[in-house]
Amino acid sequence: MIYRAAILAVGSELLTPIRIDTNSLVITEQLERLGIEVIYKGVVGDDRREVAAAVRIALERVDLLVCCGGLGPTDDDVTREAVAEVLGRVLVEDERIVAQIEARFAARRIQMPAINRRQAMVPSGASVIDNSNGTAPGLWLEEGGRSVLLLPGPPRELRAVLAWGVERLLEPRSSGLALVRRVIRITNRTESQTEETVQPLYGRWARQTIPVSATILASLGQIELHISSRAASREEAQAVVDAAAREVADVLGLDAYSVDGHPLETVVGNLLVERGFRIAVAESCTGGLLASRLTDVAGSSRYVDRAVVAYANQAKVSLLGVPESTIAAEGAVSEPVALAMAEGIRSSASVDVAVGVTGIAGPGGGSTEKPVGTVAVAVVVPGEERSKTFRFVGDREQVKFQATQAALDMVRRMLMSSSPSA
Amino acid sequence: MIYRAAILAVGSELLTPIRIDTNSLVITEQLERLGIEVIYKGVVGDDRREVAAAVRIALERVDLLVCCGGLGPTDDDVTREAVAEVLGRVLVEDERIVAQIEARFAARRIQMPAINRRQAMVPSGASVIDNSNGTAPGLWLEEGGRSVLLLPGPPRELRAVLAWGVERLLEPRSSGLALVRRVIRITNRTESQTEETVQPLYGRWARQTIPVSATILASLGQIELHISSRAASREEAQAVVDAAAREVADVLGLDAYSVDGHPLETVVGNLLVERGFRIAVAESCTGGLLASRLTDVAGSSRYVDRAVVAYANQAKVSLLGVPESTIAAEGAVSEPVALAMAEGIRSSASVDVAVGVTGIAGPGGGSTEKPVGTVAVAVVVPGEERSKTFRFVGDREQVKFQATQAALDMVRRMLMSSSPSA
Repeated sequence: MIYRAAILAVGSELLTPIRIDTNSLVITEQLERLGIEVIYKGVVGDDRREVAAAVRIALERVDLLVCCGGLGPTDDDVTREAVAEVLGRVLVEDERIVAQIEARFAARRIQMPAINRRQAMVPSGASVIDNSNGTAPGLWLEEGGRSVLLLPGPPRELRAVLAWGVERLLEPRSSGLALVRRVIRITNRTESQTEETVQPLYGRWARQTIPVSATILASLGQIELHISSRAASREEAQAVVDAAAREVADVLGLDAYSVDGHPLETVVGNLLVERGFRIAVAESCTGGLLASRLTDVAGSSRYVDRAVVAYANQAKVSLLGVPESTIAAEGAVSEPVALAMAEGIRSSASVDVAVGVTGIAGPGGGSTEKPVGTVAVAVVVPGEERSKTFRFVGDREQVKFQATQAALDMVRRMLMSSSPSA
Repeated sequence: MIYRAAILAVGSELLTPIRIDTNSLVITEQLERLGIEVIYKGVVGDDRREVAAAVRIALERVDLLVCCGGLGPTDDDVTREAVAEVLGRVLVEDERIVAQIEARFAARRIQMPAINRRQAMVPSGASVIDNSNGTAPGLWLEEGGRSVLLLPGPPRELRAVLAWGVERLLEPRSSGLALVRRVIRITNRTESQTEETVQPLYGRWARQTIPVSATILASLGQIELHISSRAASREEAQAVVDAAAREVADVLGLDAYSVDGHPLETVVGNLLVERGFRIAVAESCTGGLLASRLTDVAGSSRYVDRAVVAYANQAKVSLLGVPESTIAAEGAVSEPVALAMAEGIRSSASVDVAVGVTGIAGPGGGSTEKPVGTVAVAVVVPGEERSKTFRFVGDREQVKFQATQAALDMVRRMLMSSSPSA
């Protein structure tokens, strides 16, 4: 039975100031689902001695060690060797894996480079987990009541191998206790405003037979409340968390835009589909990010008609029909220009919903009156139009993100106050 | 003398699927500057036994252990106790710290909560590092040639204490060796193809008086080669790394698009500025991501004119002048349509450089002939036009990213083969 796990990420790049292990988040999510607790995480470089030491230490402390990374074809990929050494296994070439890797390259009309044969080396006694998204298979080893799962580092490959490993190897060995989490996403409030509203619920949640714990995570443009519970069955934990999520949604009202972790673009997409509306957007300072977020949603071609990024003033005039006089009188960053942009694209695209965004993302271009971070957003829906000016803090990319977040939230609120068409 | 370090982040939230330790990046940056190598990183929860075990293990392996987090006032802040236990010290209340914390609260006209006295508990023999941004002071301990630095977890507080600790404690104990790193970014090759080309350099680099080490990082649409070197002075290390970067650039030729870690949009932006060109893009499946990447670069308003996201076929016709007959004959995802999109936006925007991208990002919309991931890209520069069809793997967002990467790379290669205007 597996109760306690450790995760070891292998890769010298993960020990630099420029890159961080995020695979462990995906792995933790899967382990938590099975009620397996992660008691520590480690990161080591591509150094066989260090990897071996870390593996040895971990196996003294946990039932399951999940390693990710270091299964590539190159000399600095040493996880296979290090684990084999610690468990006293020899590495043997697996002909079936060689054939699979060759086939993968053949499908792309490339001959398999000789170095890829290294990926077919398997510690004796290991089970091989096919990798449908790459050449490095996963490996599963057991030794003295402990288990070791080796996963490839590239996230797509890791997910594929992990999914298979969870289903066939971990689920049968897990205790049955389940942890369920839910993410509530919030706009229009600061972290402390959210905390003040939600805190009265915490005490009761803590005293319940199956307690619920909560934590608030804040970043620019987004507040998240994470609630979780652990119970004998997934269903029990889920019921408790669902009830808590409903209480949160009640106290936060419209400010909670998702109670199941969906991003704002998905929430807006669902509203557009429900109402049978199509959308077009006219962007300046967000530079295409608003359109890109809308089209990140699978199936968005049903409701996204077009977007125009009018970076140059001339583009605002010729593509969107913004009157030159409005730009001259109000400035390119102004609510009248944002409205003219939205109206321009709505009429040229013949859509129901249109957005105009114009602002100063920085670092240059600010003034005393309109500092960097000033963004005007306008939204037009059937029967209503609104515009609003924001002042965001942060760097260029943060201003871009917050501006798209504000625009999507305006669309959401306006669509929610208009009733769905029959 | 401190050569090897480990970083231990303490906090149960860092073992969940939703939050990750990023403090270690800041700490690593400071340690690298002093030539101190981080050989591993760990994360443990707010559990005194686990923290103590991790501290004990680390002190067997490194000269310096940096812990962050767990210095707060609440019961689950256990780092002080755990470290004192491992080093066999008793905790003593430090009256000077009590007074400082009281003063901090007094300045906010709040009486110091009793629990904050815990933050004044100091392991005997520890040096106290004032925290100008919070109530938890940093602590420095030495034992048997090993050093332990305890930092508060909140990033602002950590930075303040770390800066002081680096200057007064670490710098005098560091070897004076400096580490320099450089990131070379590559397109148009697989990880193994890159490795095969670069590998012949590794041996020589390893045998140099000042050796250079290298590691390859691969993700969809992007290969990175990280090279680094450690020398008696920053200048020496820099010179060696610069020379190695030049060698890599030589063997990879045009496939190395940046030898100093810049993203492709920055490289393309610089080429546009050099040549005095303006750019406009017409996107379909990338949904605005290409424009968003181009405009992520500060100052891009100098050369980005406009972008059109023509998601609906009708938008391709009306906004970009793509002939309906071309769409009917070739399909919306085809090189002739990509070319017509590029040409359409080039003539309406009167720019020098134009891009057209059309494809199937998935998950729906694929066919046997044109499966999900099929993307046609066309680029027009003065005197030349090119189009190419790609087949990308991955999910919707990965296809979008790879398509923008391919488009930017085509622009880059075509601009490089056209000479800069005088």
